Amino acid sequence: MSHATAPVYRSEILTVGDELLRGDVVNENAAYVGRVLAEADVPARFSSVIPDDLEAITAAVENALTRAQVIVLTGGLGPTPDDVTRDAVARYFGFPLVEDAALLAHVQELFRQRGMVMPEISRNQALFPVGARQIPNPHGTATGIHVIHDGRHLFALPGVAVEMRQMTDEYVKPALRAAFADARVQTRTLRLAGIGESHLLEQMGDQRELQPLVQIAYLPHHGLLDVRLTARSQDEHEAAAQIAFAEGFIRERVGAHVYATGSTSLAEVIGNILMNRGRTLATAESCTGGLVADMMTDVPGASRWFERGWITYSNPSKCEDLNVPASILEEEGAVSESVARAMAEGARKRAGTDWALACTGIAGPTGGSAEKPVGTVWIATAAEHGVWARHLKFSGLRETIKLRTAHAALSFLYQHLIETRA
Amino acid sequence: MSHATAPVYRSEILTVGDELLRGDVVNENAAYVGRVLAEADVPARFSSVIPDDLEAITAAVENALTRAQVIVLTGGLGPTPDDVTRDAVARYFGFPLVEDAALLAHVQELFRQRGMVMPEISRNQALFPVGARQIPNPHGTATGIHVIHDGRHLFALPGVAVEMRQMTDEYVKPALRAAFADARVQTRTLRLAGIGESHLLEQMGDQRELQPLVQIAYLPHHGLLDVRLTARSQDEHEAAAQIAFAEGFIRERVGAHVYATGSTSLAEVIGNILMNRGRTLATAESCTGGLVADMMTDVPGASRWFERGWITYSNPSKCEDLNVPASILEEEGAVSESVARAMAEGARKRAGTDWALACTGIAGPTGGSAEKPVGTVWIATAAEHGVWARHLKFSGLRETIKLRTAHAALSFLYQHLIETRA
Repeated sequence: MSHATAPVYRSEILTVGDELLRGDVVNENAAYVGRVLAEADVPARFSSVIPDDLEAITAAVENALTRAQVIVLTGGLGPTPDDVTRDAVARYFGFPLVEDAALLAHVQELFRQRGMVMPEISRNQALFPVGARQIPNPHGTATGIHVIHDGRHLFALPGVAVEMRQMTDEYVKPALRAAFADARVQTRTLRLAGIGESHLLEQMGDQRELQPLVQIAYLPHHGLLDVRLTARSQDEHEAAAQIAFAEGFIRERVGAHVYATGSTSLAEVIGNILMNRGRTLATAESCTGGLVADMMTDVPGASRWFERGWITYSNPSKCEDLNVPASILEEEGAVSESVARAMAEGARKRAGTDWALACTGIAGPTGGSAEKPVGTVWIATAAEHGVWARHLKFSGLRETIKLRTAHAALSFLYQHLIETRA
Repeated sequence: MSHATAPVYRSEILTVGDELLRGDVVNENAAYVGRVLAEADVPARFSSVIPDDLEAITAAVENALTRAQVIVLTGGLGPTPDDVTRDAVARYFGFPLVEDAALLAHVQELFRQRGMVMPEISRNQALFPVGARQIPNPHGTATGIHVIHDGRHLFALPGVAVEMRQMTDEYVKPALRAAFADARVQTRTLRLAGIGESHLLEQMGDQRELQPLVQIAYLPHHGLLDVRLTARSQDEHEAAAQIAFAEGFIRERVGAHVYATGSTSLAEVIGNILMNRGRTLATAESCTGGLVADMMTDVPGASRWFERGWITYSNPSKCEDLNVPASILEEEGAVSESVARAMAEGARKRAGTDWALACTGIAGPTGGSAEKPVGTVWIATAAEHGVWARHLKFSGLRETIKLRTAHAALSFLYQHLIETRA
């Protein structure tokens, strides 16, 4: 079918594979390609997963070519009968598939390097549609296909992630830069902690002075919030100025909540602050069960500032490992302000660190009561000059409550690190 | 446009969100929905990602309705102006959007539970297209939408993963069973630990007696392996018998590695074994940084068998908290068999538990040496009657090494729990 009147947009992603449709494999390739296209200022407007089927792939390519300037397709370039992307591209453009001597030598050489003889089935990896450009695949047998047609670009890449990524970095990115050098778009992501989407919108108030200039996307994830700003202008400097204006607008209103720009995690920001100040951290967790420490130790080099952590799940462990007085546990219960404070203080003293972070709560689904329902949480942070605690209430499933508590704990520590500068 | 001649196929997945197109978020929701649809015998033939755009969502729904019996759409049901799925569905079907008093009370109650007043912007979460069925979202503010139109089913669910999954499990799955009750497909997933895909295939040997009956999919994930069996027959009992035959075939060859069927996690299996035997567990982690304990405490009711855990990241913490002799640390280094054993023994004694599980390793990207490169790992488990250790070598990024180490540690503990019956 034809879409002569449909607006042409920048790009479209096609990923081929029955395993993706069945959900056996999560579509990491589409995410990777999406990031590359966005960064190259040819953001994707659609992304489709197509079955391993000649008709379906041909139809998808035809459709995409009517409406996108750039199409990146991954998958279906392997040697098995399932792999029909090469045939679909050749058929759609009317290119003959011919064995290429140099490609055959490359495939044979790859097998030789692995100490194997090329199986006959892999000989079809040397077939290439005459009329298209080759996208080299130094580490794999599936050569990529680049077709320029009517000013539009189709890039077909293998589905093997490491090969696809290398070919994208080395061939597709430069090709996009060469083809779309006039792009004038800027994006910037502000990462916020300790504020929700609806309260942010209230704080922002009237956004009319931003709206014509900058597109704003709100991306909440379990108590943390990313705000992505996108500006588009014929003039690169103008786009940058619009982003800066919007960032200033937001920082003026909720600047204390902005912990990073870009993709830096909150744990990374906390780690950098501690490292720059020569400070150390210990954690004491009950309901989060190690998740806070896991987030901290995801940061490369964490051993320079993360000293140790406890998961004091039982009451005896809170007493024995963190010196929480048994009397407090008995009188106020394990999920209480006093216990959260005692855990943070006990961890800081036992570990000999500058800072400690503690959480205790009821993750559910059982263990709640009328007075302390599932989702009741106390977090506390301790430093030499003080101990601070906060009460929180969450709802949701066990893993959600763990995740939201961990994010809230990190946000709380971050806020005190910033405020106290200790 | 119309596809009057297009063949009708079983299902189609639509996921809404600019963040997915840009690759800011990997599309885990599409994978989850794909698995559910495949298991319900209405496998998806297409899966598309749609921008947060009223026209685009409406067009995608229209298109999908011309060719699929079931459409599952996720995302775009939130409170912000970006969230336009509700409007698209209402507009396409001509349903008026009306505030629903019961939904408003539910949204207000969720905010009340969190100790907050509902922001005015969230009031639109109570708008619902009159004529559609409500898909309850007990833990979230976005109610799902189920439309039956011309014998076809549209399910619109929020993009928040935990809410979407719960709503899918509790509403969509039963609705699909009711609508497609003639399906004669049976699936069963065997979950394996301590064996890789290639070794499993070697152990399985000649599978020709299985192949015509049962389709087998191998789904590895970071050291654990799921094997999904699918049988299709006109006769429900025949399909069940084929699955049982295939399961027996596999268990005969690698039964010791099968820790569960279905979706039960390895941590859950370990927890059930410990609970049934009245045993308890402590963890002592270095390189995994709390991930092992986090997995254990994801299991509801973990407090009945998980006593406590340590993240002994520094050398002093290994000595002070787990009684690891400083001399061993000095002579053999923190990543060594002796230290792993001492950590496990120390944790068991300090916690007074029946079992302890320890890991120490180099997660990278720094900290490796020629003798002990990044990815060098020792795991150990201790019980009253012995201590066992294993050396492992992984490659990959820091988070991958943490995850593979944690899975290996759980597999190791599971194996010893099964073998020793203590």
